[in-house]
Amino acid sequence: MDNNQTRPQQDAKRRFFRRNDKNRSAQQTEKKQLPQQKNEGTKKQGKDSREHKKTPVRIIPLGGLNEIGKNMTIIECSNDIFIIDCGLAFPDAEMPGVDIVIPDFTYVEKNREKIRGIVLTHGHEDHIGGLAYLLKKINVPVYGTKLTLALVDGKLKEHGLSGKVKLNVTEPRKTIKMGCMAVEFIKVNHSIPDSVGMAIHTPAGVIIHTGDFKVDYSPINGEIIDLARFGELGNRGVLALMADSTNAERPGSTPSERMVGSSFEKLFAKGEGKRIIIATFSSNIHRIQQIINCAARYGRKVAVFGRSMVNVVTTAIEIGYLDVPKGVLIDIDMMNRYSAHEIVLITTGSQGEPMSALTRMAMNDHKKVNITPMDFIIISATPIPGNEKYVTKVVNELMKSGAEVVYEAMYEVHVSGHACQEELKLMQALTKPKFFIPVHGEYKHLKKHAELAMQLGMPKENIIIGEIGNVIETDGTKIGVVSQVPAGKVLVDGLGVGDVGSIVLRDRKHLAQDGLIIIVVGIERASNTVVSGPDIISRGFVYVREAEELIDSAKSILGHTLDSCTSDELREWNYIKNRMRDDLSDYIYEKTKRSPMILPIIMEI
Amino acid sequence: MDNNQTRPQQDAKRRFFRRNDKNRSAQQTEKKQLPQQKNEGTKKQGKDSREHKKTPVRIIPLGGLNEIGKNMTIIECSNDIFIIDCGLAFPDAEMPGVDIVIPDFTYVEKNREKIRGIVLTHGHEDHIGGLAYLLKKINVPVYGTKLTLALVDGKLKEHGLSGKVKLNVTEPRKTIKMGCMAVEFIKVNHSIPDSVGMAIHTPAGVIIHTGDFKVDYSPINGEIIDLARFGELGNRGVLALMADSTNAERPGSTPSERMVGSSFEKLFAKGEGKRIIIATFSSNIHRIQQIINCAARYGRKVAVFGRSMVNVVTTAIEIGYLDVPKGVLIDIDMMNRYSAHEIVLITTGSQGEPMSALTRMAMNDHKKVNITPMDFIIISATPIPGNEKYVTKVVNELMKSGAEVVYEAMYEVHVSGHACQEELKLMQALTKPKFFIPVHGEYKHLKKHAELAMQLGMPKENIIIGEIGNVIETDGTKIGVVSQVPAGKVLVDGLGVGDVGSIVLRDRKHLAQDGLIIIVVGIERASNTVVSGPDIISRGFVYVREAEELIDSAKSILGHTLDSCTSDELREWNYIKNRMRDDLSDYIYEKTKRSPMILPIIMEI
Repeated sequence: MDNNQTRPQQDAKRRFFRRNDKNRSAQQTEKKQLPQQKNEGTKKQGKDSREHKKTPVRIIPLGGLNEIGKNMTIIECSNDIFIIDCGLAFPDAEMPGVDIVIPDFTYVEKNREKIRGIVLTHGHEDHIGGLAYLLKKINVPVYGTKLTLALVDGKLKEHGLSGKVKLNVTEPRKTIKMGCMAVEFIKVNHSIPDSVGMAIHTPAGVIIHTGDFKVDYSPINGEIIDLARFGELGNRGVLALMADSTNAERPGSTPSERMVGSSFEKLFAKGEGKRIIIATFSSNIHRIQQIINCAARYGRKVAVFGRSMVNVVTTAIEIGYLDVPKGVLIDIDMMNRYSAHEIVLITTGSQGEPMSALTRMAMNDHKKVNITPMDFIIISATPIPGNEKYVTKVVNELMKSGAEVVYEAMYEVHVSGHACQEELKLMQALTKPKFFIPVHGEYKHLKKHAELAMQLGMPKENIIIGEIGNVIETDGTKIGVVSQVPAGKVLVDGLGVGDVGSIVLRDRKHLAQDGLIIIVVGIERASNTVVSGPDIISRGFVYVREAEELIDSAKSILGHTLDSCTSDELREWNYIKNRMRDDLSDYIYEKTKRSPMILPIIMEI
Repeated sequence: MDNNQTRPQQDAKRRFFRRNDKNRSAQQTEKKQLPQQKNEGTKKQGKDSREHKKTPVRIIPLGGLNEIGKNMTIIECSNDIFIIDCGLAFPDAEMPGVDIVIPDFTYVEKNREKIRGIVLTHGHEDHIGGLAYLLKKINVPVYGTKLTLALVDGKLKEHGLSGKVKLNVTEPRKTIKMGCMAVEFIKVNHSIPDSVGMAIHTPAGVIIHTGDFKVDYSPINGEIIDLARFGELGNRGVLALMADSTNAERPGSTPSERMVGSSFEKLFAKGEGKRIIIATFSSNIHRIQQIINCAARYGRKVAVFGRSMVNVVTTAIEIGYLDVPKGVLIDIDMMNRYSAHEIVLITTGSQGEPMSALTRMAMNDHKKVNITPMDFIIISATPIPGNEKYVTKVVNELMKSGAEVVYEAMYEVHVSGHACQEELKLMQALTKPKFFIPVHGEYKHLKKHAELAMQLGMPKENIIIGEIGNVIETDGTKIGVVSQVPAGKVLVDGLGVGDVGSIVLRDRKHLAQDGLIIIVVGIERASNTVVSGPDIISRGFVYVREAEELIDSAKSILGHTLDSCTSDELREWNYIKNRMRDDLSDYIYEKTKRSPMILPIIMEI
């Protein structure tokens, strides 16, 4: 097994000398196809790195640094580029009306001829949610594990890209050639099955990217993270490690997913005689498996609610990732044939999302489910920062209907999918990287992760806390940020990608804060006389029927403004508009201490 | 001491028989003025309650139930009413542009002649922040402890009410007559000094309202909560308990404020050689005292930042609630005379509030303070739900400037001001109430608090989980919700109180989501012909320069709409407006999947 694994580096080296071959496409090689050979090559390379500079490799994060979400990284060497992940981020309060946020693809588009492919670590939205938008711009082969690509396929269908993109299923321990580089997939544990990290074999050395990971010694339906392979690579020499920083602030280790299963066991006993409703992330198939197992043991039927939950469960069953005993799963329309204590509902809405199934149940707005004191509800998730108030609202409403609701940390109905400090140290100790680039996190997470590495002996100057758009270059002997490429947030609103920018957002926020007053005036061009108005229309400012006096005074002030304009001034419409805006704005602020947006409109007659 | 305490109940009884005396004002009596007497009266009353119905007392919560904030409770008996607290709540994401939320005062205004006074439990915004608005409607005497009234006085000045309201300083163990009732102040611990709970002596029995409280056996500059008095009242018979539910979900006990002091000691040692900046709540004078003590011990000077911090510190020093060794406090303009390691800054902004001093420091936008790697920053607070993202942003920015930032739970730099489950049980056990009304919390908190009481043996039917506006009546033998008075949220936006209602909010949210398109058309009345337009103006929808094509097509569609109208139809402006709105809306949605607000304006020429 050892010998096989040396191949990618050999391969990468050979490719490096053939770098003029620009249009060479990426190919997948399987372990078993690789010929046996001694690992001398690797040893030699390890020696080289102390002696000669090598062809530099560039790491360009386009998302996921100093932010949570839209993870995307460019790896570039000579004339070859490949992309790791292409995720989305969710908009914050500063982006009203925005649906999702994706990375800026400018650099990728400019270098489209160099791109050999896209490799995916796992199927979460923050790693695949931007992919369809990217593939509309560059159509290159996509590589990922079975579940990841099944989820991608669903997205491509929504975007009308189904069948137009080459999706290549790969698996851990397999290696994909990417021009002069090669990407080896390595099994990791995470809150979605089929997650992988990557060893990137480049002419400059091996770079490890963990993807999102945790260490789970008792995973559900899966294997333990391939610690041995990380260790082997570490022993042979890892040039740089890029590792998940999400939980870098948390001491200790993340508990096993199996712990949630034992909590479910206890809670199923506690909820006996009642209908059990469990809300969780649709992508956490291991958790759904545990719910199904529990339901089967307790002789309950399972019905699935929420569009994404139904989609993922259907997909997971199709590809054999969910093991459902015969007769356990029932259609939601069959629920009425069973008593409350005979069923379990699995639903979306664990984040209190306003349109989700659980929220609609809580608000008495769900067609098929009425919450009553006969319900025992488990929210198997932790609120993502920003969602706390939504979740609390749902909990309160469910309780008001008399249901028992389990949501607190004390019941251990959720575990994180990310490594805590002890696991992060383990990854450092196994891979023994020369350089370290903490990824996937806000600045505070990256900083804390860097501090952990320093505690383990890494020199400060060997750590790069980067920013998106940084071109991080290493030639095997040193590392540094050498330049900058375009990077940022591209906002998606409806069908529009990137057409909502800072001016539109500024206007939306202004309108939300204080509303709007429109002034309409008709001016006859020939005579420069006001022939109509000024009229005032407002929205989101005050309820006009209750503020007639204010609006009447405003009109009269605008009348004065217009009266005081000379005929020459009435020719200068911008002048009149500014005068009206200023005069009205002063008056409104004095009377209300508010600053609505004021839009003067002059109609030419 | 026992004997003195029986007086209020005696007094209340006497008053009860004189209930026609409507205009009687509230008076304050001091303990020492009360004559010695045996407590037979109380015993007799205790007996009575098993035998006769008494004059009923009504408890009407106008805020603080099923919500966090705007705490306000009406206590009513015969022709007497008094009010406990009048707080504000902060707006949530559903209330864009709103500054604060206060209770609906309709019931108070309707019964203005019955109101004997307002009693305050402590000086936090959620207990006094609505007071100035209430006093503008009804001018009645206000009773509170020294610090509480000092803070109220500051607010009244801002509202131009200074000197117009009678503020009566009282203290624990003193009793205020409120018509046929009497209110006795009882010392409690909380995160602001001078907090009190109340024993309300009524003809129907004693009602205890804890206010916000915790049990702190080692308080700073103060006394331990008067557990003995709660116990004494409990032993004599408490009709109903109203208790703080904020932390009802948390097991155990809240640590003493002194624990934060010992954390500061360790952190001052850790921050040696650096400037120390501590952000905390301005009202937590005990914490500020501990910072000052630490600074003095470490030979550092203290400078104070942020408007509310400066106000509170000034007030607290004036009234002797902060003990500052000579020379420790310095003006912020004197900072430059000292090295970094010689000073401590105390600042507002522990919640990441966008305009606060700490946020401005973090964003490199503060005139006097530049954050550098020589700064050691402590955020001595926990984010209030909804503020997590703001706090995280500030932490990230401070760290990017190289500062060390201590903000995590592990450093124990914050403790709550509210009682956890063990303390709540203690309060139940001491007061042994017949009835229980959990207050101050969302539904989930009230529910959990009710469950705790049931665990201690309280029958379910003796617990009222109320809603604001409920009239909860008890005659000493039973309790129930007998009717409903107007209650709700009144939104304050600038100078407007209540003029932002559901229609205005709906419009603001719509404008924030998708922006606005205005259609302007000039129609000549006489001939019913379109003489101008249709023109289109948009804001917050798309950046028009980049979407010229879309806007041009929209204009042409509106042109078709108008062309297809008959002369008769052009007479019906509402018809034309609806047609234009519908046609444009369909087109825009098809092209963009967005639904901006569409405002058709027809100018009559």
